Amino acid sequence: MDKLLYGVAYYDEYMPYERLDKDIQMMKEAGINVVRIAESTWSTHEPQNGVFDFTSVDRVLDAMHAAGIHVIVGTPTYAVPTWMVKEHPDVLATTAQGPGKYGARQIMDITHPTYLFYAERIIRKLISRVSKHPAVIGYQTDNETKHYNTAGDNVQLQFVKYMRNKFSSLDELNKEFGLDYWSNRINSWEDFPSVVGTINGSLGAEFAKFQRQLVTDFLAWQVGIVNEYKQDGQFVTQNFDFEWRGYSYGIQGDVDHFAASRPFDITSVDIYHPSQDELTGIEISFGGDVARSTKQSNYLVLETEAQAFWHWVPYPGQLRLQAFSHLASGANMVAYWHWHSLHNSFETYWKGLLSHDFEPNPVYNEAKTIGSDFARLSPKLVNLKKTNRVAVLFSNEALTSIKWFGFNFTSDKNYNDVVRWMYDELYKMNIGCDLIDPSVESYADYDVLVVPALYAASDALLEKLNQFVQDGGHIVYSFKSGFANEHIKVRSTRQPGLISEACGISYNLFVEPKHVALRDDPFGVGEEHNQVHTWMELITPTTAEVLAWYDHPHWGEYAAITQNNYGTGKATYVGCYTSAAVIRKVLERVMKEAGVWGADQELAFPLIVKTGVNDQGHTIRYYFNYSDAPVSFKNPHGEGTELLSGDSIVAGQEIKLERWGVRIIEQH
Amino acid sequence: MDKLLYGVAYYDEYMPYERLDKDIQMMKEAGINVVRIAESTWSTHEPQNGVFDFTSVDRVLDAMHAAGIHVIVGTPTYAVPTWMVKEHPDVLATTAQGPGKYGARQIMDITHPTYLFYAERIIRKLISRVSKHPAVIGYQTDNETKHYNTAGDNVQLQFVKYMRNKFSSLDELNKEFGLDYWSNRINSWEDFPSVVGTINGSLGAEFAKFQRQLVTDFLAWQVGIVNEYKQDGQFVTQNFDFEWRGYSYGIQGDVDHFAASRPFDITSVDIYHPSQDELTGIEISFGGDVARSTKQSNYLVLETEAQAFWHWVPYPGQLRLQAFSHLASGANMVAYWHWHSLHNSFETYWKGLLSHDFEPNPVYNEAKTIGSDFARLSPKLVNLKKTNRVAVLFSNEALTSIKWFGFNFTSDKNYNDVVRWMYDELYKMNIGCDLIDPSVESYADYDVLVVPALYAASDALLEKLNQFVQDGGHIVYSFKSGFANEHIKVRSTRQPGLISEACGISYNLFVEPKHVALRDDPFGVGEEHNQVHTWMELITPTTAEVLAWYDHPHWGEYAAITQNNYGTGKATYVGCYTSAAVIRKVLERVMKEAGVWGADQELAFPLIVKTGVNDQGHTIRYYFNYSDAPVSFKNPHGEGTELLSGDSIVAGQEIKLERWGVRIIEQH
Amino acid sequence: MDKLLYGVAYYDEYMPYERLDKDIQMMKEAGINVVRIAESTWSTHEPQNGVFDFTSVDRVLDAMHAAGIHVIVGTPTYAVPTWMVKEHPDVLATTAQGPGKYGARQIMDITHPTYLFYAERIIRKLISRVSKHPAVIGYQTDNETKHYNTAGDNVQLQFVKYMRNKFSSLDELNKEFGLDYWSNRINSWEDFPSVVGTINGSLGAEFAKFQRQLVTDFLAWQVGIVNEYKQDGQFVTQNFDFEWRGYSYGIQGDVDHFAASRPFDITSVDIYHPSQDELTGIEISFGGDVARSTKQSNYLVLETEAQAFWHWVPYPGQLRLQAFSHLASGANMVAYWHWHSLHNSFETYWKGLLSHDFEPNPVYNEAKTIGSDFARLSPKLVNLKKTNRVAVLFSNEALTSIKWFGFNFTSDKNYNDVVRWMYDELYKMNIGCDLIDPSVESYADYDVLVVPALYAASDALLEKLNQFVQDGGHIVYSFKSGFANEHIKVRSTRQPGLISEACGISYNLFVEPKHVALRDDPFGVGEEHNQVHTWMELITPTTAEVLAWYDHPHWGEYAAITQNNYGTGKATYVGCYTSAAVIRKVLERVMKEAGVWGADQELAFPLIVKTGVNDQGHTIRYYFNYSDAPVSFKNPHGEGTELLSGDSIVAGQEIKLERWGVRIIEQH
Repeated sequence: MDKLLYGVAYYDEYMPYERLDKDIQMMKEAGINVVRIAESTWSTHEPQNGVFDFTSVDRVLDAMHAAGIHVIVGTPTYAVPTWMVKEHPDVLATTAQGPGKYGARQIMDITHPTYLFYAERIIRKLISRVSKHPAVIGYQTDNETKHYNTAGDNVQLQFVKYMRNKFSSLDELNKEFGLDYWSNRINSWEDFPSVVGTINGSLGAEFAKFQRQLVTDFLAWQVGIVNEYKQDGQFVTQNFDFEWRGYSYGIQGDVDHFAASRPFDITSVDIYHPSQDELTGIEISFGGDVARSTKQSNYLVLETEAQAFWHWVPYPGQLRLQAFSHLASGANMVAYWHWHSLHNSFETYWKGLLSHDFEPNPVYNEAKTIGSDFARLSPKLVNLKKTNRVAVLFSNEALTSIKWFGFNFTSDKNYNDVVRWMYDELYKMNIGCDLIDPSVESYADYDVLVVPALYAASDALLEKLNQFVQDGGHIVYSFKSGFANEHIKVRSTRQPGLISEACGISYNLFVEPKHVALRDDPFGVGEEHNQVHTWMELITPTTAEVLAWYDHPHWGEYAAITQNNYGTGKATYVGCYTSAAVIRKVLERVMKEAGVWGADQELAFPLIVKTGVNDQGHTIRYYFNYSDAPVSFKNPHGEGTELLSGDSIVAGQEIKLERWGVRIIEQH
Repeated sequence: MDKLLYGVAYYDEYMPYERLDKDIQMMKEAGINVVRIAESTWSTHEPQNGVFDFTSVDRVLDAMHAAGIHVIVGTPTYAVPTWMVKEHPDVLATTAQGPGKYGARQIMDITHPTYLFYAERIIRKLISRVSKHPAVIGYQTDNETKHYNTAGDNVQLQFVKYMRNKFSSLDELNKEFGLDYWSNRINSWEDFPSVVGTINGSLGAEFAKFQRQLVTDFLAWQVGIVNEYKQDGQFVTQNFDFEWRGYSYGIQGDVDHFAASRPFDITSVDIYHPSQDELTGIEISFGGDVARSTKQSNYLVLETEAQAFWHWVPYPGQLRLQAFSHLASGANMVAYWHWHSLHNSFETYWKGLLSHDFEPNPVYNEAKTIGSDFARLSPKLVNLKKTNRVAVLFSNEALTSIKWFGFNFTSDKNYNDVVRWMYDELYKMNIGCDLIDPSVESYADYDVLVVPALYAASDALLEKLNQFVQDGGHIVYSFKSGFANEHIKVRSTRQPGLISEACGISYNLFVEPKHVALRDDPFGVGEEHNQVHTWMELITPTTAEVLAWYDHPHWGEYAAITQNNYGTGKATYVGCYTSAAVIRKVLERVMKEAGVWGADQELAFPLIVKTGVNDQGHTIRYYFNYSDAPVSFKNPHGEGTELLSGDSIVAGQEIKLERWGVRIIEQH
Repeated sequence: MDKLLYGVAYYDEYMPYERLDKDIQMMKEAGINVVRIAESTWSTHEPQNGVFDFTSVDRVLDAMHAAGIHVIVGTPTYAVPTWMVKEHPDVLATTAQGPGKYGARQIMDITHPTYLFYAERIIRKLISRVSKHPAVIGYQTDNETKHYNTAGDNVQLQFVKYMRNKFSSLDELNKEFGLDYWSNRINSWEDFPSVVGTINGSLGAEFAKFQRQLVTDFLAWQVGIVNEYKQDGQFVTQNFDFEWRGYSYGIQGDVDHFAASRPFDITSVDIYHPSQDELTGIEISFGGDVARSTKQSNYLVLETEAQAFWHWVPYPGQLRLQAFSHLASGANMVAYWHWHSLHNSFETYWKGLLSHDFEPNPVYNEAKTIGSDFARLSPKLVNLKKTNRVAVLFSNEALTSIKWFGFNFTSDKNYNDVVRWMYDELYKMNIGCDLIDPSVESYADYDVLVVPALYAASDALLEKLNQFVQDGGHIVYSFKSGFANEHIKVRSTRQPGLISEACGISYNLFVEPKHVALRDDPFGVGEEHNQVHTWMELITPTTAEVLAWYDHPHWGEYAAITQNNYGTGKATYVGCYTSAAVIRKVLERVMKEAGVWGADQELAFPLIVKTGVNDQGHTIRYYFNYSDAPVSFKNPHGEGTELLSGDSIVAGQEIKLERWGVRIIEQH
């Protein structure tokens, strides 16, 4: 990327009156240099089967080009037109809840040939038309693509073929998945039942994996088509999203980010997050770390919030803080969804940079300063290279497995809770990290791996982790790691299975803690934070040092948290769900042991530090104040220049940040 | 009406043994002078297709007539017989949840010709048989009629025709409803999808309006049939109900009370409400105000609770308090649902005046005193004329729009919460008011309009409201008023749209308040009540005076509540959801400014005052003690007679009310 | 039974690797002398339609026999194979939610001839093959059989025939069930609607009764088949379960335990219960009392928890406490579900005696001591005869009726809450009792009947209860007893209907108490416990003595709890839902009045005493410490021997129990 992109999603089609010239004028004033168009409006561009109308695309491209604004064109396939559903109702995905109903987006069967036929045609029509337009710098295929729980008869049939291909025999399948249980054996391929009602976790999880593969295949197919038209210098990307809890919370279980991103030139994501007093920057960092890690490269934030939905209007300063936080994680583009607030339909309260009245407002006015700073500082800030010595290892298989075999009857915690429990503390300690999945081949570049709830994992993966420790690496495992294989077959060895030896522990009992603390508050976090909740394993150390014992009249003989030297490395095992304070202390200890602790780690949330190296080979340090009160710190590094102000900074100099403030120091 | 009616719903068909003579004897003792019959028992009166049996109707009519008790006959169309559903299962309404299941009442498609054919036949058979019976004074068509979410293919087809009739072209429709969004455009009428799955609020709301029209049409059709038989002096009415929250809470969104009541001779309602310590009289007043306002005339309470459902057995005195409260709002009839408690089926615990044992009980005994007082005081109390200077403007369109575009992810508040938030304080301040909808042509008779959350409103309506202020009227708007047009298309001007100038304000940002108060407690309500919740608009005054600013580190520059002189009137705008205490203070201020404040307003809940003028042209003042402790007050008016006791009252005299007590003073 | 059985459910089919010899060795070490097999694995034993493979059955039988371990063989009919559902999808039960989906167990229509055909074939194949094997001591038919809500068209047709058979005419049915209401009359048998949507409680309850009859019939049919093969000395049993609240809570509404158990040789149950700090022994006692009462004989616990599901790993000592508690209630067998923890599928966390690693663990090690003690003490402890003077009368009809006509809008309490409210206090006072249903012919052996919420009851049943009092018996009725007849038709007499005279009270009003206490704390339980909740009847005593009045400004004139001499007996009526403390005091009073109070009742929970007479005619007294702290008591009885230790015990000797401890004293 040759410069920072600052953009918006733009919908000429939705405008209540002619706005194009006025909008472009206002965009220019705000420093917007890229817009994304077309990804949502198939029914506008193909109003009837085979009748095409790209008027709005053409005019926007021409007008943007005239204004020097780049355009990313989306393939409009994630929302199907009325005529298609009227002609072929079966393009809607049949799910466990039955046939689909027209209305929303992302409701079709992404494997259905009728859908694929029409999708291919509109893609070719649109992309062939725009690819040589000088405004176009890239393409987005589809949008936030997932499998939409498609599970109709045709999908079941594909799944049977997938299973037949995967397993050499039904006997092997029945054995590996434990299908004798409750008379679920499949003794003839013809008997293979629809799995929408299955109670077999192995089968259910395998179907989920198959559904993720459908997404990977679908996106690769789209990329292949678009690549036929792509010109030199243009890119193809996809806009990935995350587990949604009213905001972008964690790993998305309905798509495999690493596998799906492979055919793309660059990875993009959308990140929405709480604002106002709840703004922490964690989601910005988390989503960015995933996106960057997929290709170990810079990424684009294709959508993030301006005023955001409902009433997360940012406080003054927060929009700036957010924008630079994206850059600090390695983004080369920050784009808002969306330019203007919608006057109808569904996301009317998912407000844009402009409110419904299209007038300048405090948020838009703050965006102007961002656009200006982005343009001015682009050469210093674009293409930030980040090299992290720590990685969090997540897994879609583990995520699915914890859906099937979670914590207890009453807990609503899932896999991502465990991921975030560990990730959040790394973030707050200013430990930069990658977020990698099991497909990553080598851990050689990392000193520390943090491994939350790796419940479902192949022998090969666990052995690779053992080797990492053997070779001098540090791992922090949470509870429930190593328990089952990749088919969620629980290991019949002592737990935690293949990592027992490296961890120097074993257990075969686990309970739900009630009023259980860690004995003698070993991490000095105080009574309130010294509690264990949700899950505890009754660990017997073999070679491990015990960092914490349970404080309980009956389980006091068991270890809660342990650490073991193995080869030249060290494996730490956290056998219970602790408070944030305790896991932070454990992580801090390991980071120090691994030598991953420096001056920036002596600072801590709400003062966030993010680091990288720019195109000139200089170290860039971002300092963010994620709080509503001013903070200050003494520059722990050498001389540099604060880029926003142009001020020189010397070692030890006190640096003050206003509330929600940002400083960017380029080291000399 | 020539006298007060005191009645019960009576079901001879449900009796476990022959009771008619005994029941009538007990009714006479209680002063019951009217019964409603037949509306629930189609399957008894037409046991087989085309076979009729009106035995129970005939005998009840004869016996009641002999006893001098009037009868209102209901058309039994709201609950269909088994034989009809067995023959034609498709008479059951298909809803978004799929085809209907037989069992409950109010489950049929009120547009289905099969249903209409059978309904017409039973109506004609029944009404032609009874119309000349001297016991019959009127008819109820159907019961609590609503659209029952009917949304099958036939209804969708009718809706497409309705839309084609309403919109000159699809382009206009697509534009107005914003259907480009998410590829929802309809480019050919043949493509019009079923709207049960729509995510487009404009389309969803229009369908809801269409469904309400189906109810209006259905009732008008029934009235037309019944009118063919109606004799001089007889009336036709419908029993409307309200939003149900375990009791009659607010405006009923599934029928348009004003439009539907037009063909009827008189409006009736059913009102159920909490009892015992939760009895406030608000629902009695609210439902009565709606009913009275539909025709600016007296109304009937066709159903209200005796012992009521589950365990809302009234405390001693409450049944009397309730009965006179109905009269005080303009009712000419108070009838209990129902005479006796049911021994089977579903509403077994929705108890009647009599318990299952048919014996006199404390509630029945209290009814006797009411019947006696009604009979004695009927000439004084019947046909109470009420002239209110204040009206609350509600709107079914606004109600639906708030369903689509409510407050935030976690709030369960809907339109009626806002209506009641304002209405309840008017009630508690003894401000008599009408409850009118946008179909009311002139506001000339009112001094003050209170306008809760008028989110969806046409330009014409807002201009009419502006004119009202211009001409000297007072309006109190709540937040979210004026935001969108009648198709829930958000206005693309500054907010609050067309009323901005009259209110002297504008805003384009709004947030969800957390820990937000009004600065310096401007209404002196104390810290607990000075909080803002759920919704706040960030208002900039243009010409308005600011009554309250937000107290917040970032939003403190914005106004919360404003008041603006416009023309010769004044518009007050409440931009946030406040406590009851704050809205009360705002309303009190406006009422005083508008001169709608007198001696009765110096009294307040739990001492409720209701006023009107009787047939003799005398002012009648009801005083109600809605509390479990005695209250007293000094008569702020001139001489009069307390009608229940016959005592003379002089100005300034202290009047004591026992707990749950009632006084009725006729001014001399 | 000639000895105590100590067993496990064993699934050779589920093993991840060859384990049989090793498992048997470990069983022997633990004293396991019986296993249950085959009930869950139809698809293993009949892998294709008509192809049979009993390899695992054969090999397990042979190996167990060689080791001297008995085997109970289950008919594998509660979980259907994939091939059957693929061939005949309609074997899955159609319920109110629509057609079934394959996946879980217990999803078929137990009336479907296709299912019955295949079920009969596999039963005959399996049982004929194993019946003469010397290892086999008995059979279990199906498992936890219930009706699975089967309600498809074929079931509806059977129900119409059942109804036609039951009622002489539709007029009688319409009258008795109150079908005139809401036009539900059925005027021709052809019109009989499916009842899945009915709102008529009488109809709904009758259908539930019919569904229970289907279960009784189905089980009797299975027993008939198995009996054709059963050899001398073998038994046939069924494994009943209970209302499930995450554990075995109360009466199972979907099967009629007394009727269904009739054709069986012995009754079995499964009992799961909270553990650790929540272990009370109540569920063990409750389930045992039901099981024992069905045949007034010893019973088997075919399944109970070892480590149990999720994390109810027992504290040290608890597994022993539980095992002897089962014996103390009359069990002759205690078996764990299951031997080993499952490595796949659904109940992976419903852990067995062994964890997934098959290694000895603390729970298994404790089982070894139990096996050893069972073997040693079997002659003393087997066939414990229990003779109780108190019975709790429960009723499936009452249970269903309370589902239809429960407490109020917000309460989630059901019939079993009331049963347990009374039962639990009996348990805690060490009052041994039977749990009987209305089919029990004579109450002559009892001194006291405790009757919770007998809402639906025939005249005959109530007259029988009156006669019991008349003849000198004591009854404690709770609220809602006697209210409706067996068709849930509310009685049209004063309440509580036919028992009014015996109770010396009447009422016809009832309310939901809010802030209502009993006046002057008549039972001295303190303010916190003196509250009334959920339900209160406004009782007027006629001849009864009032034990408690309500404390309330309006309901203070009514009685809450009364007691009446009737004939030579006494009827106590508790008209409101009280705290545990109050109902305990009431029950204690009655027990003392009835002379059912002795030395063991002076002890109380957590010290539990259970008594019986062994095969030698000696009294056996079990003492259980259901707490985490030691307790001690002075032996209130004569000399004896503590069987576990062999120590002699004298009268008045202090006996100490460690936490969760057990003592068994055989009286000399």
